[in-house]
Amino acid sequence: MDDQAFDYESLYGKAAPASAARFAGFPKYMFVGGNNDPEQIPVEGLIEAAASVLRRDGASLAIYNLGMGPQGYPGLRRFVADKIARDRGIVATIDDVTITSGSNHALEMVGKLLLDPGDTILIEEFTYSGAMGVFRRLGASFVGMELDADGIVTDALAVQLAALKAAGKLPKFIYTIPTIQNPTASILPLARRKALLALARQYGVAILEDECYADLLWRGVEAPPALYALDPGCVIHVGSFSKSLAPAVRLGYIVAGWELMRRLLPLKPDSGTGALDQMIVAEYFSKHFRSHVDHLNGVLHDKLRTMVEAVEREFGATAECWHPKGGIFLWIKLPDAVDVRKLIQPAADAGIQFNPGPEWAVDADRSKSHLRLCFAMPSKATIRAGVAALAQVCFEQTGLPERGGNVARGARSRPAA
Amino acid sequence: MDDQAFDYESLYGKAAPASAARFAGFPKYMFVGGNNDPEQIPVEGLIEAAASVLRRDGASLAIYNLGMGPQGYPGLRRFVADKIARDRGIVATIDDVTITSGSNHALEMVGKLLLDPGDTILIEEFTYSGAMGVFRRLGASFVGMELDADGIVTDALAVQLAALKAAGKLPKFIYTIPTIQNPTASILPLARRKALLALARQYGVAILEDECYADLLWRGVEAPPALYALDPGCVIHVGSFSKSLAPAVRLGYIVAGWELMRRLLPLKPDSGTGALDQMIVAEYFSKHFRSHVDHLNGVLHDKLRTMVEAVEREFGATAECWHPKGGIFLWIKLPDAVDVRKLIQPAADAGIQFNPGPEWAVDADRSKSHLRLCFAMPSKATIRAGVAALAQVCFEQTGLPERGGNVARGARSRPAA
Repeated sequence: MDDQAFDYESLYGKAAPASAARFAGFPKYMFVGGNNDPEQIPVEGLIEAAASVLRRDGASLAIYNLGMGPQGYPGLRRFVADKIARDRGIVATIDDVTITSGSNHALEMVGKLLLDPGDTILIEEFTYSGAMGVFRRLGASFVGMELDADGIVTDALAVQLAALKAAGKLPKFIYTIPTIQNPTASILPLARRKALLALARQYGVAILEDECYADLLWRGVEAPPALYALDPGCVIHVGSFSKSLAPAVRLGYIVAGWELMRRLLPLKPDSGTGALDQMIVAEYFSKHFRSHVDHLNGVLHDKLRTMVEAVEREFGATAECWHPKGGIFLWIKLPDAVDVRKLIQPAADAGIQFNPGPEWAVDADRSKSHLRLCFAMPSKATIRAGVAALAQVCFEQTGLPERGGNVARGARSRPAA
Repeated sequence: MDDQAFDYESLYGKAAPASAARFAGFPKYMFVGGNNDPEQIPVEGLIEAAASVLRRDGASLAIYNLGMGPQGYPGLRRFVADKIARDRGIVATIDDVTITSGSNHALEMVGKLLLDPGDTILIEEFTYSGAMGVFRRLGASFVGMELDADGIVTDALAVQLAALKAAGKLPKFIYTIPTIQNPTASILPLARRKALLALARQYGVAILEDECYADLLWRGVEAPPALYALDPGCVIHVGSFSKSLAPAVRLGYIVAGWELMRRLLPLKPDSGTGALDQMIVAEYFSKHFRSHVDHLNGVLHDKLRTMVEAVEREFGATAECWHPKGGIFLWIKLPDAVDVRKLIQPAADAGIQFNPGPEWAVDADRSKSHLRLCFAMPSKATIRAGVAALAQVCFEQTGLPERGGNVARGARSRPAA
C-alpha cells in the first residue's frame, strides 16, 4: 500500500515549524556550538565510575526515576549541592536541587512557570541564543540590558526598570549569565551583583541566574558568590554539566527553594532525566571534579591564547577581542563597516562556521559587526588555520583586514563592499 | 536578604500547573507504573558494554549529539532498525529512526506536529493514561474506539469514522497500541490491522502506532507485523526501551519516512537525548537483546501467573481478568456495583496503589469498575500479599468479594455500600 501517496500536509498543525535539513556533518572550521575538547573526556574514569555505580545502584534502573523521585539521582544532587556550596557560596540541600536534561531544559521549566505570551523579560543585550530561543517559543519579548566589560551596567538597568514600571511593562524576570557571561565571558563584580539584587527586590522582578560556565575559570580568576548565594529568595539558579564535562551527556540542574521547586516539578513531565548519564557523572565527579576541571581549564586557556594570537595575527587592529576570564568562546568586534551577516555564506563556502553577532543579541543591528568564535573543540592547528581562512573571507568580502600575518593581503577577488 | 518575603505568586503564568507534593517513597504494595523487575537488570552486561562503547566512542561525548546529528547515536538507531526488521517486519534505514527521551517524548513530538487545540483524536476506549496526558496538554479531545479481547473493533470504527466525517470532526490521527495493548494486553489480528489501515487511507487519517510493549510477548505468542510494516505511508511508529530494559534509562524511538521525520525533528529542541544512556544500551542490546528479552519474558510470564492465581484465589468470580499475551500489567473487571474510585484512598491507607480504570479510559464511567495491576516490579510474595490486602479493602468497602482464599471473609468493618 505504501506506494500510494498519503496527504500529511493537510494534517499538520498551524504552528508546525519548518522542515529540518538532513545532518550533513561538520564544516572543516567549526567555531560554533558549546562543544568541548574531545581529548579531555576522561574515558577511563567514566568506565571506572560506570562499573562502580552500576554495581551499587544498577538494579534500581528497573524503576522510573530509580525509585528515588522526580528530582533526579540523589548522588548527583548531593554532588551539585556540595559543589555550589564550595565554589559558589550557595547553601542548599539536595531537596533544593533538581536535575534536568541540560540547562535549556531548566530555562524552559522556569519560562513555563512564569511566562504568559506577550510577557517581557530583561536579558543581557548580548546573550545566549539558545535561551532566547526557549523564551521566544514561550511568547516572551525581550528588553536588552546594557553590558560593559564587567557585565550588566546596573545604573543603566535602574533607569530601564523605572521606565518599564512607568509604562506598565515590568518584566517577569531578569535572565542573566553573571559568571562568564555568554558571549562576552565577563564576570559581574560583587557590587553590581548587590545592586542587581536590590533592583530585583525593589521592583518585585525575579532573577534567573544561568551559571553554565561558572566552573570554567582561568587559574587565579575569582568570581564573587552566585546571585543565589547572596539572595536565594528572589533568584532561581541554573547550571550545567555540558561545559565542565560533556554536552552529549544531557545534564543540567536547577536550584530553588521548595516553594518554587514544587511549582517547577510539574513542568518536567518527562518521567526523569537519563539515569545512566546521571549515575555515571555523579560517580565520576564526586571523586574527580576538581582535578578534572582544573586540568580542563588549563587546556581551554591555552586554546584561547592560541585563538587570540591567531585573531591578532590575522586581523590586527581590525578586530577587538573582549577578554574572557574563562569559558569556551571569544566575542569579537569588527569595524562598524563590516556586517558579519554578509560573511556567513562565503565563510560556509570556505568551510568555516561562526556565530554571527545578530543571533547572539537582542538588537541585531547593534551587534551586526560582532561574532562569537568557540575554541574548545578544534585543535590548535585548526584554530590557527580557521582564523586565517576567516580573515581571508572577511577581506575578500569587505576589504578588511588589509594586513594579515604581518603582510598585505592579496585579493583573490576584489571586495564588494 | 533572604529573610524578606518575595512575591513569586504574582509572577506565575496563568497556565502554571498546581504544586507537586514531596516525593514520599513507594507504598508497600506498588502495582502502578511501568516499572520492571530490578533483579532482571543485566548489571554486569551493562558494565561491560559501558567499557567497550566508551573506549570506542567516548571522546565524542565532548560534542553535542556526539557530533553525529540530531537523530541520535547511530549505533542505537542501527540496533532499532535491525530489531524492528527482524521482529516487526519493518523495512527502515537508520535515517528513518530518531531516538527520543522515552516514548512519551515521541508521542509529544507527533502531537505537536499534527494537533491544533480543539482537534479530535481517536484513541482506544481503554488506553495509556500517559498518552492521554500528553495529547490533553496539547489541547486534543478524544473519541474512544471500542475494544474487545482482540483490540480495536474495526467494524465499529468504520461506523464512527463515517459519523465523524459527517459531523465535520474527522480526527487528525488514530492513536493505537496494537501489540500488547495498554491496559488490556491484547494483540490486534492481521485482518483487523488491514481493516484499520484501509480506514485510515479511506478517511485520510494518520495512525500513530505505539509499540512500547511489543518486545514483551509470552513464549509461543506471535504478533502480526507492525502497522508500519504493512503501510509505512500513513503510519508513525513509536517504541521504547523502558519495558525491554529499564525505564530509568530514558530511551524511546520514532520511526517515520524522511518527509515526515524532517517535520518532526524541529520539535525535538533538546540538543539530544542522554548519550551515555544511548551508547550503553546500544552496545549491550546489539549483542544481548534476544537472550535478555527471552529470559525477561519468562520471568514476567511467571509473575503474571502468580498475580492471576492470587486474584482468582482472593477475588474468585468477583474479578474477571483480561488475558495478557505479554507485557507487565493485568486489566481486571470487578462487578458493576464496585466503583474503584472509592477504593483508592482505603487502598492507599492499606499501603496499596493500583491504577483505577477511570484514569485509563476515555470514558471514566465506562471503566469505573476496572483496575490495572502491574506485576513486573513487585516480588511474587508481594504480589500475593498485596492482592490479598486489596481484596480485603474491596470487601470492607463494598461487601465484595465475599469469599477469599476459599474461606468467607471476616468483616473488620461492615461494608459501607
